[in-house]
Amino acid sequence: MNKGTLVVLSGFSGAGKGTIVKRLMEKYDEYILSISATTRKPREGEVHGVHYFFESKETFESMIQNNDLLEYAHYTGSGSYYGTPKEFAMKNLEDGKNVILEIEYQGAMQVKKQYPNALLVFITPPSIEELKRRLISRNTETAEQIQSRFETAKVEAPIMSSYEYILINDDLEEAVDDLHKIVKASRYSTERQNSFISMIQNDVKSLSL
Amino acid sequence: MNKGTLVVLSGFSGAGKGTIVKRLMEKYDEYILSISATTRKPREGEVHGVHYFFESKETFESMIQNNDLLEYAHYTGSGSYYGTPKEFAMKNLEDGKNVILEIEYQGAMQVKKQYPNALLVFITPPSIEELKRRLISRNTETAEQIQSRFETAKVEAPIMSSYEYILINDDLEEAVDDLHKIVKASRYSTERQNSFISMIQNDVKSLSL
Repeated sequence: MNKGTLVVLSGFSGAGKGTIVKRLMEKYDEYILSISATTRKPREGEVHGVHYFFESKETFESMIQNNDLLEYAHYTGSGSYYGTPKEFAMKNLEDGKNVILEIEYQGAMQVKKQYPNALLVFITPPSIEELKRRLISRNTETAEQIQSRFETAKVEAPIMSSYEYILINDDLEEAVDDLHKIVKASRYSTERQNSFISMIQNDVKSLSL
Repeated sequence: MNKGTLVVLSGFSGAGKGTIVKRLMEKYDEYILSISATTRKPREGEVHGVHYFFESKETFESMIQNNDLLEYAHYTGSGSYYGTPKEFAMKNLEDGKNVILEIEYQGAMQVKKQYPNALLVFITPPSIEELKRRLISRNTETAEQIQSRFETAKVEAPIMSSYEYILINDDLEEAVDDLHKIVKASRYSTERQNSFISMIQNDVKSLSL
């Protein structure tokens, strides 16, 4: 088992994922955010290896072929690929870092399949009323954009229970500390202790004075 | 859901369960140790309601009939009953305490059946070699007694994976803090958030501007 934990975070738009991740990394230096690879062009100020790994379509497709991605998606509208490079995550896990992926359901399921020890956490506000309040009070979006986020929430709610933990973001500091506890505790979960259990079960057979 | 967590601790003799529980309760005042009921006679210095609830055989058997016990066992050798009174645990859980049961496998499975939110943790030394070292270095037991503990460990090892978490007691303070994290994190596990998830999944349907 790697020394760090691969932490996959999904959740409703408006749940506060980004804020939680930012605060988690400020508070505990054992976390690092995965950098995605994409074929879309860099926007002003975006730096390769900081915001994204900007790759050509050919490179990205060869990464898919070589199984160099933990998950990826192809957006038919823009034609762009987005994905999570495996090497960056694995290297940091080996160094003892907990690597955070902020991705959506389809990607989360792909990661879990390739890396069964991944910890899948779904972040949600304490109620739908509060979700609505947060999305409306942003004041940066049109009614149409807000309505589209509502529709996405309706699609996401049914898949919540595919995650291992449901983190309720009511108070930010509490949510950050609870997420940290979930990450630490998850390493002791029985399904992640299989090799330790096998060792104990094997060694106990020869136990004698 | 109750406000506290019902924490069931089992583990190898020599794993340090008792020491962990004692230190956990010193460090965090949200824990309380369940007091067992028994039909055996009090020993010198043992106080009813402190060390045990000492009950008559008739009272104990009527508690079984009335489903007043979370688990119980009848020891054929001594003819004594031992069990966990439900009322004490439920009252303290309702008050927000995490109630600790230090019981064996059979009892742990009975508790889980009656109270599915119970958190089952198996405590183990980091290796069988270390288990052997700890059991021998007690210097209070005959070779026969130690050998009997070894045999018990051989019976217990195969059932480890029926527990939800495996807590490795290498460093005491670390084990205590990790157990506390497991208890806190477990409340966010998806199977314990069923009613919250149902609420969200129901309320999201009517989400609109």
